[in-house]
Amino acid sequence: MKVCFIGNCGHSSQAYKVLNQRNGVVFAGFAPGSEHEKSAPAYAQGWPLYDSYLEMLEKEKPDLAVISPVFGLTAQVILDCAARKIDIFSEKPVATTLEELNRVEKAVKESGIRFCAMHYLRYHPAFYLGAELVKQGAIGDVRMITAQKSYRFGTRPEWYWDKKLYGGTIPWVGIHAIDWIAHFSGKKYLSVTGQSFGGSPEMAALCQFEMEDGVMAAINLDYYRPAKAPTHGDDRVRCAGTKGVLEVRDGKVLLMNEEGNQVLEPEKCPELLEEFLDGKQPIPVEEIFHLTRAAIAAREAADTGKKVKI
Amino acid sequence: MKVCFIGNCGHSSQAYKVLNQRNGVVFAGFAPGSEHEKSAPAYAQGWPLYDSYLEMLEKEKPDLAVISPVFGLTAQVILDCAARKIDIFSEKPVATTLEELNRVEKAVKESGIRFCAMHYLRYHPAFYLGAELVKQGAIGDVRMITAQKSYRFGTRPEWYWDKKLYGGTIPWVGIHAIDWIAHFSGKKYLSVTGQSFGGSPEMAALCQFEMEDGVMAAINLDYYRPAKAPTHGDDRVRCAGTKGVLEVRDGKVLLMNEEGNQVLEPEKCPELLEEFLDGKQPIPVEEIFHLTRAAIAAREAADTGKKVKI
Repeated sequence: MKVCFIGNCGHSSQAYKVLNQRNGVVFAGFAPGSEHEKSAPAYAQGWPLYDSYLEMLEKEKPDLAVISPVFGLTAQVILDCAARKIDIFSEKPVATTLEELNRVEKAVKESGIRFCAMHYLRYHPAFYLGAELVKQGAIGDVRMITAQKSYRFGTRPEWYWDKKLYGGTIPWVGIHAIDWIAHFSGKKYLSVTGQSFGGSPEMAALCQFEMEDGVMAAINLDYYRPAKAPTHGDDRVRCAGTKGVLEVRDGKVLLMNEEGNQVLEPEKCPELLEEFLDGKQPIPVEEIFHLTRAAIAAREAADTGKKVKI
Repeated sequence: MKVCFIGNCGHSSQAYKVLNQRNGVVFAGFAPGSEHEKSAPAYAQGWPLYDSYLEMLEKEKPDLAVISPVFGLTAQVILDCAARKIDIFSEKPVATTLEELNRVEKAVKESGIRFCAMHYLRYHPAFYLGAELVKQGAIGDVRMITAQKSYRFGTRPEWYWDKKLYGGTIPWVGIHAIDWIAHFSGKKYLSVTGQSFGGSPEMAALCQFEMEDGVMAAINLDYYRPAKAPTHGDDRVRCAGTKGVLEVRDGKVLLMNEEGNQVLEPEKCPELLEEFLDGKQPIPVEEIFHLTRAAIAAREAADTGKKVKI
């Protein structure tokens, strides 16, 4: 299997690690997603390096493209790969505007390619276990989910200050929380209201979602975790249901229900890209587009102060 | 000082405990707030007991009324006491409709009485310390606050199922979270969007507030804490600011900022009613009305699905 990497702005190194441990993978080349990337990543040492990803695709004709450019350019790279019938493992969000998302969705479906996005955090052990328990009915019917992403800001590349290139903190960071909520609840998003602080990058945001069957959800995002915080991120999900409360926090699952209280230390869970390479579809393609649509709608809600349908 | 108690549906026993330890307090009588209350509380044993609070006020002419009827009747009892120039220590919310709130506000102001509501949780040691630290600048400028109230439902009186009498979970439970947010941030509420689940009582609710200076806030409320939960409630506030994050959880203050990470065990803090009896105004009267207005607006937002100005 010939694999090309396009861009190194997100979590492509994680994909490299998985691919590097599989038999039969040929790393056929790396190209930046745009002129905003100054250098090739360390993992691509010794690979054919291209300035233009289009030229690379033309020459190498890969089976799979791992896509991770400046976030606002992801959709165009996907369109270019889909047009060449190349399977895709792409950074999320797979688009940062609704118009682009519609084009990506159409192109992916019409091309018949295999397609997955890096919704890695669904496959984090504690969140994976938490979702399993909720699906098994550990807290009865889910009524309300709140999810948090809090990061250190640290040093970010210049293009974070260009909203078109960055795409927004809700699509970039918030989509993980949006993904958890969909995964834990098994429900679709219907509408969203939101707020954010700061132009680009937004330093904090709050969104509230109406979901199928009256399920309610909210996310809070921020980049205000100080440099001295014990970890880079503070990821959380809390589900309240008719029979109890389940919370994922500090890498553990806290479950309170009619049977008592437990703190569960999660074991290993499957790896997203492994599953995809094994021929499974770890997240349905329709769901990837739905999550992206919800994230773009939430950014619009925060930008306009209005409720937005999803 | 002659004190009469009207109703025993909320936290009047907490007020009794404080008053019982003060010199010069005469417990002049107890009357229910309405026919929905079946019996007098244990603390009123040996007091003059009345069926009608109006008759009690007429005969006893108290200096202070401690008011805690069925929640939807609080406003009327306040109006009756204010008309008689009796100082008031009332359960929150001080009204459950905007129309009543306006009447209460006018009556309290025109009567010149002293007035305070049972926003006790602002005076819980961990929340008191947390608010002090935030006001001292421990996390820089506050940008986003999220607050949680989660309770066991247990057994509740029949009138919880009558929305007019109950007044709603957002005014009854949520107002504590609304109070914390105002207290921690020092900002006023501007507008709210919300959702709730269940008719009356609402078993869960989510609200999102726009505040002065772009401060964002959200609350999540539920009655889904199971019977076997280690405590009745799980109260939380989390403030993210330009220099760090402060969280109140499990009765402790967790502070992360540029100086490092601390878990602070709070000491004692002042008691709300003590302060009031000592002649202070622990929560400005204007602020009590503002919090109540925010809570009523949030319930309206949840009921209508629309953004409501505060």
